Amino acid sequence: MSPPATLVALLHGPDQPGLVAKTSGWIYARQGNILHADQHRDMEGGEFFQRIEWVPAGGNPAAAAEELRVFAASLGMAAKVAVSTHRPKGALFVSREDHCFHDLVLRWKAGEFAGDFGCVVSNHTVLADAAKHYGLPFHHIPVTAGTKAEAERQQLEILRATGSEFVVLARYMQVLSADFLRHCGQPVINIHHSFLPAFAGGKPYHQAHERGVKLIGATAHYATAVLDDGPIIQQDVVRVTHRHGVEDLVRKGRDLEKLVLAQALRWHLENRILVYGNKTVVFD
Amino acid sequence: MSPPATLVALLHGPDQPGLVAKTSGWIYARQGNILHADQHRDMEGGEFFQRIEWVPAGGNPAAAAEELRVFAASLGMAAKVAVSTHRPKGALFVSREDHCFHDLVLRWKAGEFAGDFGCVVSNHTVLADAAKHYGLPFHHIPVTAGTKAEAERQQLEILRATGSEFVVLARYMQVLSADFLRHCGQPVINIHHSFLPAFAGGKPYHQAHERGVKLIGATAHYATAVLDDGPIIQQDVVRVTHRHGVEDLVRKGRDLEKLVLAQALRWHLENRILVYGNKTVVFD
Amino acid sequence: MSPPATLVALLHGPDQPGLVAKTSGWIYARQGNILHADQHRDMEGGEFFQRIEWVPAGGNPAAAAEELRVFAASLGMAAKVAVSTHRPKGALFVSREDHCFHDLVLRWKAGEFAGDFGCVVSNHTVLADAAKHYGLPFHHIPVTAGTKAEAERQQLEILRATGSEFVVLARYMQVLSADFLRHCGQPVINIHHSFLPAFAGGKPYHQAHERGVKLIGATAHYATAVLDDGPIIQQDVVRVTHRHGVEDLVRKGRDLEKLVLAQALRWHLENRILVYGNKTVVFD
Amino acid sequence: MSPPATLVALLHGPDQPGLVAKTSGWIYARQGNILHADQHRDMEGGEFFQRIEWVPAGGNPAAAAEELRVFAASLGMAAKVAVSTHRPKGALFVSREDHCFHDLVLRWKAGEFAGDFGCVVSNHTVLADAAKHYGLPFHHIPVTAGTKAEAERQQLEILRATGSEFVVLARYMQVLSADFLRHCGQPVINIHHSFLPAFAGGKPYHQAHERGVKLIGATAHYATAVLDDGPIIQQDVVRVTHRHGVEDLVRKGRDLEKLVLAQALRWHLENRILVYGNKTVVFD
Repeated sequence: MSPPATLVALLHGPDQPGLVAKTSGWIYARQGNILHADQHRDMEGGEFFQRIEWVPAGGNPAAAAEELRVFAASLGMAAKVAVSTHRPKGALFVSREDHCFHDLVLRWKAGEFAGDFGCVVSNHTVLADAAKHYGLPFHHIPVTAGTKAEAERQQLEILRATGSEFVVLARYMQVLSADFLRHCGQPVINIHHSFLPAFAGGKPYHQAHERGVKLIGATAHYATAVLDDGPIIQQDVVRVTHRHGVEDLVRKGRDLEKLVLAQALRWHLENRILVYGNKTVVFD
Repeated sequence: MSPPATLVALLHGPDQPGLVAKTSGWIYARQGNILHADQHRDMEGGEFFQRIEWVPAGGNPAAAAEELRVFAASLGMAAKVAVSTHRPKGALFVSREDHCFHDLVLRWKAGEFAGDFGCVVSNHTVLADAAKHYGLPFHHIPVTAGTKAEAERQQLEILRATGSEFVVLARYMQVLSADFLRHCGQPVINIHHSFLPAFAGGKPYHQAHERGVKLIGATAHYATAVLDDGPIIQQDVVRVTHRHGVEDLVRKGRDLEKLVLAQALRWHLENRILVYGNKTVVFD
Repeated sequence: MSPPATLVALLHGPDQPGLVAKTSGWIYARQGNILHADQHRDMEGGEFFQRIEWVPAGGNPAAAAEELRVFAASLGMAAKVAVSTHRPKGALFVSREDHCFHDLVLRWKAGEFAGDFGCVVSNHTVLADAAKHYGLPFHHIPVTAGTKAEAERQQLEILRATGSEFVVLARYMQVLSADFLRHCGQPVINIHHSFLPAFAGGKPYHQAHERGVKLIGATAHYATAVLDDGPIIQQDVVRVTHRHGVEDLVRKGRDLEKLVLAQALRWHLENRILVYGNKTVVFD
Repeated sequence: MSPPATLVALLHGPDQPGLVAKTSGWIYARQGNILHADQHRDMEGGEFFQRIEWVPAGGNPAAAAEELRVFAASLGMAAKVAVSTHRPKGALFVSREDHCFHDLVLRWKAGEFAGDFGCVVSNHTVLADAAKHYGLPFHHIPVTAGTKAEAERQQLEILRATGSEFVVLARYMQVLSADFLRHCGQPVINIHHSFLPAFAGGKPYHQAHERGVKLIGATAHYATAVLDDGPIIQQDVVRVTHRHGVEDLVRKGRDLEKLVLAQALRWHLENRILVYGNKTVVFD
């Protein structure tokens, strides 16, 4: 027997007295059993954020989800409600580098994610066999300056055809256009190999080495139309010294990238992330 | 005009449906304004833990605190309720080492703690002048094997006379007896200079050096009758190498001890810590 | 054209004046070009430790290595000299858990190690297909209380037959006997899933959860006849809270185990580790 | 009896074969006893860096230091040689914030630094009494846009009069002019409260909060004519979440600033830092 379906609601809106009581009271009145409830107030902006996870009574979690959305709207709040029985499927975009690719797929197979990978998209063929070994359909879409628009059109087509609800850029070395992001309509998680906002743009390890920093970092963020400027989900750093050349930074950075991207994706799939403005609230 | 008084309740008891709704509903029904609410379920033990901070309506926060206690009891929960207008006073126990002493007092003067130090108690006179400079009464109570019982009697008398509601052992190098802890009746926070449970007992840096560990730690915990075995509040570590002798470990450890003890005390005074069994729930 | 062969010498012996000058002078006099030289003095024990990496003149690095050994002996020092053109081959021991297994093999294929895996040995068959996919011979040797001695005999036979110069216990869930270690004669690197010496023995994550620690750790060490007591190579920790159950500790611990074991093996294969007594000097 | 005087030489110059052998041989030939020797090669730039600490024979360490400088020059290397019996005196520049001030002075009194503070210079009077209590002369030099040049003239005069060999900007909230730095002629160590190069300039915690980073940092660096752009000595970070407002960042940042600045100063005074280009080699 599988565990009962749970709902996770992410709510936010203008703060007002009694929101905690109202949402928890609403669930309790419907015989729902709250498993976790976490809230946050942005004191400056007067905004209220909440994540509630509960077991709804009755046999129709989808209906309960919809009811909650309506109720939240009556309180002036936007709500996103996920049902645990639905596992979203996503697309993995890669280029030549394989460390994040292997790491994410192995974690997926180990059961670390509340979602699935449905396909691999790449502008190179290097990882075609590996994807196949993992049982993942592989789509090779070369990208050049001249073919970029057409390539993005094909990528969007694949996302639609596979019902992808999220995209992970696992060291995908092409910049996605603002057009792509707009038409995609799904969250796109990127890993940038620096401690943003330091060293945005190309060759961040070279930039870091040049500047002589004593820590290097990695940043997972939602991709937006402005390069390396989207809402930050997770960051981490590791110590380096004068003994480390660019090659060492690249090697040490790989471990950072793997950990930071995997953590960001895990949180995303567990519906722990609320984006507001250009920032994130992460209920971990 | 000072900010309005807030209440902080720490509740725990057997889990049951609707606890979040009931407590938040109770506060809302009395026109209270919840600022923060955080809860935790121990899935194995079936225990529910909650910290709620709110602004009560009306002019009598002490009465509101008492009402909440009665309400919590009706739900089968124990409750500790603190009123923000009451700043608890505590005693600082020290010996010869002064780094935690200076650190805590300077943080206190910088406004980092939601409580105050009322006196310094020491088995040595080394820090008498420093305490005086900080404006803190200093009590010198020498401790020897033969006089320990009498010394502890004097210490307890000082705690009573000064209305101390907590004790911080800031590298106080005497073991407090089970009798002292029982009669004291107030929480006693200790800093142990190792990553407990590794290297309990005396000379932990020597033990760590002998074993050749690559990280050394510090642990803040509530003192109990069993030495170095009380509920852990906070721990941290720092990297060491073969180049570090015991003296280096001692020096590096001082920074750890300062940070870990200060963090533990800050949490304690903000009523963020619930002790259950031999563990802590820290709502940070 | 491949880079010139380099030699790495690890020397240690009683300290005496002029050792740095003598070893570097000896190499310089033979037209060797020192790339790195690092030394350490254990002030308490009066022991001198050195790691030198250099490009020897002439076409016979093996002869140069032997000469250095003789020279070191004349200074009262033991010396281990490795030639960069020789890549040692090792055996990977695994059970059911696959995270360290995949991590190590993928790092090996990414070129992170100065050595190679020659075979996989397991008391289970779970990882047989994965090993095969990676192109690694897989040896299934079941171990029960009654067959342990015979199983270890077979393992030793495989080590001999494959010319294994090191063994990595990548979450191999059997205790190797003192007899095995003695007959093996090669370094055996183990990963223990706790911050040793805390929580030695079985089920360390359960022990850690029970004790309520705020950090969990992993420790890579050379295996010795005393369980979980060998010279520590590397350790790391990660923060946990009351929200983390044993399952979360296991998941978070996997990342620690991967990083710590890979780092230990990298150092070992780069001849950066000198064992003395029950401790290590790591020239990183 | 005090320990024998030691010399510490920091050398650097174009790499050439035999440098390690030559410098250590030179010392050994003069019956010097090398305690530590550490070297680094910048592979890209072909530069050699070395730090050697040794006990010279004979009774004239100053003469031995001078001889080493001449010898290094003959090898094409610049050398800075410090004698352990000379403890450099420095000036502490502060404004209103007192955490780094207290931290540095208490560490100094605890014996953590191989140098001394000779005076405190401030554009405010807030810390005058505290300085006096610590026994440090306090110089109040107000700075306004109109009086800056004159104020810097007075500061330089104080540095000269007190024989200051280094300056520490312990959250001194004025930008020193390029002119000041040129005339000062002594190393000036600054603490910037961000992870440079991110958030250079004013109000870095506000910038960090605005950007929504998940880690905040602090950076100790040598001051140069370009604001917040000098050679980085040390950096560290601490995790923050959406729950932390700017005030929390400021409080958490204080601990970072103290640790990072103290570490940088300790390394500086132990002659562990070589500046080349806009970067540092730190022999720790």
